[in-house]
Amino acid sequence: MTAFQAWLAAAAERRRELGLVRATLITDATTPMLDLAGNDYLGLRTDPRIVAGAVAAATAYGGGAGASRLVTGTLPIHAELEAALCAFTGAPAALVFSTGYAANLAAVTALTDADTLVVSDAHVHASLVDAARLSRATVAVARHNDVAHVAELLAASPLPRAMVVVESVYSVLGDAAPLAALAEVCRARGAILVVDEAHAIGVNGQGGRGLVADLGLSREPDVIVTLTLSKSLASQGGAILGSPQVRDHLVNTARSFIYDTGLAPAAAGAALAALDVIRTTPALPTQVRHNSDLLAAACGIDPVAGAVLSVAMPGPDEALAAVAEAASHGIRIGCFRPPSTPDGSSRLRLTAHAHHDDLTAACDLLTRLTHAS
Amino acid sequence: MTAFQAWLAAAAERRRELGLVRATLITDATTPMLDLAGNDYLGLRTDPRIVAGAVAAATAYGGGAGASRLVTGTLPIHAELEAALCAFTGAPAALVFSTGYAANLAAVTALTDADTLVVSDAHVHASLVDAARLSRATVAVARHNDVAHVAELLAASPLPRAMVVVESVYSVLGDAAPLAALAEVCRARGAILVVDEAHAIGVNGQGGRGLVADLGLSREPDVIVTLTLSKSLASQGGAILGSPQVRDHLVNTARSFIYDTGLAPAAAGAALAALDVIRTTPALPTQVRHNSDLLAAACGIDPVAGAVLSVAMPGPDEALAAVAEAASHGIRIGCFRPPSTPDGSSRLRLTAHAHHDDLTAACDLLTRLTHAS
Repeated sequence: MTAFQAWLAAAAERRRELGLVRATLITDATTPMLDLAGNDYLGLRTDPRIVAGAVAAATAYGGGAGASRLVTGTLPIHAELEAALCAFTGAPAALVFSTGYAANLAAVTALTDADTLVVSDAHVHASLVDAARLSRATVAVARHNDVAHVAELLAASPLPRAMVVVESVYSVLGDAAPLAALAEVCRARGAILVVDEAHAIGVNGQGGRGLVADLGLSREPDVIVTLTLSKSLASQGGAILGSPQVRDHLVNTARSFIYDTGLAPAAAGAALAALDVIRTTPALPTQVRHNSDLLAAACGIDPVAGAVLSVAMPGPDEALAAVAEAASHGIRIGCFRPPSTPDGSSRLRLTAHAHHDDLTAACDLLTRLTHAS
Repeated sequence: MTAFQAWLAAAAERRRELGLVRATLITDATTPMLDLAGNDYLGLRTDPRIVAGAVAAATAYGGGAGASRLVTGTLPIHAELEAALCAFTGAPAALVFSTGYAANLAAVTALTDADTLVVSDAHVHASLVDAARLSRATVAVARHNDVAHVAELLAASPLPRAMVVVESVYSVLGDAAPLAALAEVCRARGAILVVDEAHAIGVNGQGGRGLVADLGLSREPDVIVTLTLSKSLASQGGAILGSPQVRDHLVNTARSFIYDTGLAPAAAGAALAALDVIRTTPALPTQVRHNSDLLAAACGIDPVAGAVLSVAMPGPDEALAAVAEAASHGIRIGCFRPPSTPDGSSRLRLTAHAHHDDLTAACDLLTRLTHAS
């Protein structure tokens, strides 16, 4: 056994001792289950219109983009998707990335420098944490949804520039950010505001346009939105929305854009089709929020902002047992365990979906599972 | 104008002054050009078999994976693709990522810790540079392809662990790494060797299986291969090949895997189809290397290792002028300018493709363009 093999074995043993072993279990579509775990909030992933969008794009443009967006990898469908994202959200410009993770890396690394303070909410997604770490900026973590703490950190900074990084709807607890107050603090302090709308697009705001659009902030020059195409938009990829100047800057400096192959045509086509379905079916966001309220009530928690629900459990073993019990009843739920939770807690993670017509049985089971522990 | 807008404007002005403005120009398939710029080395991107693979996968599994691979986002097609990558390269285990960039981030961040020295070749891809920066490891840069320097850096390190990071075929100059010697140094020093085969898979080694397989290193427990699905494999995505223990470790600890949506089904289907075509058409890698030799001779440079050719130009203006002149003759070539080049030079970047049957006119033009400057 080499030293590296021994290091891997020791890490595996620690995971086993802590009950934190994860595996890539295949989700078998031939055994249909009620999915209360995935991020396909609007149930569009296997919708024939979305599949048709993917198929048409692959047929027209091929299996991949073939190159970086800056070489020959910008295809007409990328421009179409960027225009559709602008039309949907009201943003002046959009840049599409191959993943939401890459978009978040770009937003934080390319729009800051060594003279920037990044104030990051304690609950932001791992990709934003990694982005801040990868940037040249000084990073400060603000207490979750604590606008006064954000203001305090901005006021105390000697640096000439600042960026505040939040999510509009958080995955950890399912709550929304106080965006209006954050935008005001940022404006007062000359800081830019980056809002990850990964969980909000398709779910929150009028017609699912997100919370930044709802607040009329889409055209603010100092507000930047990031999003993913892989949740409500039923595809893969990410995007940054902002001014044309922000887009130009990203095209010229964002390493996760420049040194990556363009988004695959089928993924762009699926996301375009999903945007069209959402635009023409404004009931979808309402349905997912209605189902979210039903699930929250069943679990005995307060209603959450969007599609993501988080239910505290005593420990990782109890969380895993509840997941297994739900699975035995044909219901797929997830759980967050350390190190995925910022406070070391274990939680059931449920997601609401627009296309679930009857959640009665699921709600009964969830009430039992969440009240037993 | 806000302070942020002024900062963006100043950066844009600097780019203009330096002649380094980049844009996302749409590659219009309705004006067919000879593509000597993209990374679709085997010409499979729009091959009907690859498109059929993408179409079948989107039809069977939907537009996206719908969740992280650890939640419900591992679909049967991901397991199929991982098995096919193992069968193709001889690797014991494989883990598929949503991009090659994400795979490289994972390999370097998750397989090192604060007690690790990362020795990175000076010419490695931006994603590996970012990965090293994002890791907790101490990072040292070795002179390009200088095995003695690698050995020296490893010998001087007081840290208990070390990782050497290289590419099997480099994009900057198109040359190959001295892999056998590097593997020997790593073995002697107890360091693990990470080899990015992004440019080699499909092009180098017997049947396009890559250079690690050619050297019989695929099953070495301390050798890890990263690759992209977006070049020869005509799709999008990335993968890490290694031991089952490495795969387990990545599944449990690699943030760019855990906190990302699984690869879109269509991308997995396209890559699977490409692997099948390469397996059954062993002439493809030979054809691309033959065309690479023709292009190198036309440009007056030594033959390169694989499909990527790099021709030094006096400056960014001359490089851009050559690109424009080639385009006016229906030939698409690229160029590398600062900050994409490690030495600040400007270079024409050409790529060879298996499906180009007659390069006579292109070679004549390239001879003129590269000898004029």
